[in-house]
Amino acid sequence: MNLDVSFTPGEVVTGELGARVAVVIDVLRATSTMVEALGNGARAVFPVGSIEDAVRLAQNLDREQVVLCGERRSLRIEGFDLGNSPREFTPEQVGGKLLVMTTTNGTPALVAAIGARRVLIASFLNLGAVIEELAADGGPAAIICAGRERRFALEDAACAGALVRGLRARSQAPLELNDAALAAEILAAEPRRPLAERLRETAAGRQLIEAGLGEDVDFCARQDRHRSVPELRDRQITL
Amino acid sequence: MNLDVSFTPGEVVTGELGARVAVVIDVLRATSTMVEALGNGARAVFPVGSIEDAVRLAQNLDREQVVLCGERRSLRIEGFDLGNSPREFTPEQVGGKLLVMTTTNGTPALVAAIGARRVLIASFLNLGAVIEELAADGGPAAIICAGRERRFALEDAACAGALVRGLRARSQAPLELNDAALAAEILAAEPRRPLAERLRETAAGRQLIEAGLGEDVDFCARQDRHRSVPELRDRQITL
Repeated sequence: MNLDVSFTPGEVVTGELGARVAVVIDVLRATSTMVEALGNGARAVFPVGSIEDAVRLAQNLDREQVVLCGERRSLRIEGFDLGNSPREFTPEQVGGKLLVMTTTNGTPALVAAIGARRVLIASFLNLGAVIEELAADGGPAAIICAGRERRFALEDAACAGALVRGLRARSQAPLELNDAALAAEILAAEPRRPLAERLRETAAGRQLIEAGLGEDVDFCARQDRHRSVPELRDRQITL
Repeated sequence: MNLDVSFTPGEVVTGELGARVAVVIDVLRATSTMVEALGNGARAVFPVGSIEDAVRLAQNLDREQVVLCGERRSLRIEGFDLGNSPREFTPEQVGGKLLVMTTTNGTPALVAAIGARRVLIASFLNLGAVIEELAADGGPAAIICAGRERRFALEDAACAGALVRGLRARSQAPLELNDAALAAEILAAEPRRPLAERLRETAAGRQLIEAGLGEDVDFCARQDRHRSVPELRDRQITL
């Protein structure tokens, strides 16, 4: 099984994507929030790049059905219904709803995945389910870390490495790994401390703590809270 | 002490460079070759972006004094005196000479470092000397990995991590590390196997072995072969 990890969207080799299943990771917090929202009964997530596009799309859909959500600098956008904190996306808030979402790092990672054979959404919250889905698919995968402002983000690399480790444990065939996948596997094996503690030391974790959102960091470290794998098709993400 | 690692030149935050000492790393093989050549008596290395620029610069200098060197796809450029194999840069070949050098990944990393307060050249061959130089300088550092075709390269990350580890051992003050520096330190601690063996597993290492240059990989893993730190000033690299 061939696993290619990109630590930033800028490193994705677009020409090779067509044969691969892409897996998009933005642990803090966009893909964690998507997994939580869809796991709690949201019908679909529409990821969009700008605040203007989000408002326009919400107007074109049935506004009663729509939850406008997302963040800039970690905080809820003015006039939006929700921010990007997974704890806000309860069954009461999002059950049966269409979510229009714009986030700083998550959207560029999804854009980088366009052209892949399939596009799956991963986080620690659905780690085991993504491993099973990739093992069942069996094809080569492109694991795309959102990173942070176009730079390496440790929490996404650790999640990518946890996928590699899980696939190594399940896969009959030997794994073919690129350098970033080899590195991610080593990072995910770092055994000394609990995941939540490690996430709190990352740049994104520290920024969330400073913004009073430290509980989000702990929440995003809750492994296998959902057994579902959201998938992007026709510009919307559904289960 | 503040250490900021960029795993690829594209991740360098240019606006923050002015206060920092940049350290450029291209283990396989550009910075290893520069360290070896200058350690063996070359007077200066002129890094240039294109084959045409290299030939033009060689013509403007005293051609008797010049060694034209570099690679494309790991191999010596047609008409050039030397390739990019550090083993070629013996005292007999390069003593007292001016080297005009063009390589695939090394040059973009040097370009990314422009604007830094100082620009140092690092590899495993001069690892200890670079650690001492950074500790003596004491200022914040930007460690810039060349990577490979704009993507993460494990050998450069491991060398960056070895710098972080060395500075942690020497520094009185606590280290402030960005996410990539935290990750690099974990990668450098991976203790199971000798460095040469780990370099042979990287994408760059495998490509060199396929090209019949496996001995270069072992050579570039020879830690602390030189005690000197090349520095880029006015477009030339000297000791």
